[in-house]
Amino acid sequence: MPNDDERFMHAALDEARRAAEAGEVPVGAVVVHAGRIIGRGRNGVEHLNDPTAHAEILAIGAASQTLGTWRLAGCTLYVTLEPCPMCMGASMNARVDRIVYGAPEPKFGACGSVVDLRAIPRYNHEFSVQAGVCADLSAEMLRAFFRAVRQRKATTNAPTPLTDPE
Amino acid sequence: MPNDDERFMHAALDEARRAAEAGEVPVGAVVVHAGRIIGRGRNGVEHLNDPTAHAEILAIGAASQTLGTWRLAGCTLYVTLEPCPMCMGASMNARVDRIVYGAPEPKFGACGSVVDLRAIPRYNHEFSVQAGVCADLSAEMLRAFFRAVRQRKATTNAPTPLTDPE
Repeated sequence: MPNDDERFMHAALDEARRAAEAGEVPVGAVVVHAGRIIGRGRNGVEHLNDPTAHAEILAIGAASQTLGTWRLAGCTLYVTLEPCPMCMGASMNARVDRIVYGAPEPKFGACGSVVDLRAIPRYNHEFSVQAGVCADLSAEMLRAFFRAVRQRKATTNAPTPLTDPE
Repeated sequence: MPNDDERFMHAALDEARRAAEAGEVPVGAVVVHAGRIIGRGRNGVEHLNDPTAHAEILAIGAASQTLGTWRLAGCTLYVTLEPCPMCMGASMNARVDRIVYGAPEPKFGACGSVVDLRAIPRYNHEFSVQAGVCADLSAEMLRAFFRAVRQRKATTNAPTPLTDPE
């Protein structure tokens, strides 16, 4: 029986899977309030042609619409990959209470891997972070995606979307 | 005769003015490519009910639509106020070449005031920053906005949008 964090992370993984099906780097996110998913997002940078269209940004935007306020106090952001600085900043701006993420992101991760924006005292925003929930599932989905991209690239010379973590 | 940086900052200040007229904290941004404005944005957090709707995020999104690519290499982001971590992260994700900003932001500024995300070597994104262009005009617009909010609040007890820098 999965716990709540695993259950909601599976919903984020579903979003990541849909991103991959659309040719996007598979990252998914959901925002949860009072035990209910109130916003979903999946990476749409290529499809939406927008460098800000990360899963977290879209999930936070959707959650704000659901709640009718941009202040997401009491909310938890679940995301399959450690947030980049943009998405950590968005979580701080949105006043989320908690972030739960899956795989670490060694090149951009702003939740500890490269920098920990929470550790900067003057930002004065306290939220708890739980890392590594369903991390293997997330990491395997990313690996499979980039493996397929490399294979396609080897035959068509197509550009690699975003940054290949490998 | 204003130089190009001042000229484009005045376009960003126009966006900030429109934000204030709509009851938003007055911050405006434009993205410039090859001497032409290709994206405009103004703070819309309250109006759009979205904590990610900062001027820079909207200007970067608009510029990507104009250029037909999310990679904004060769572009300069002009913004009336020092970017927060979210917007610095967005600029890095978008690969902008240069940021020109007006007033410093002592509480959230991620371009030197609180943290300098550019200074983190592993982010490996080099862009030049010019601070303080038309800073007085931007700061005065912000001061006037928060003065008016405080006066209104004193009579109606309405909530203060975002964070009053004073």
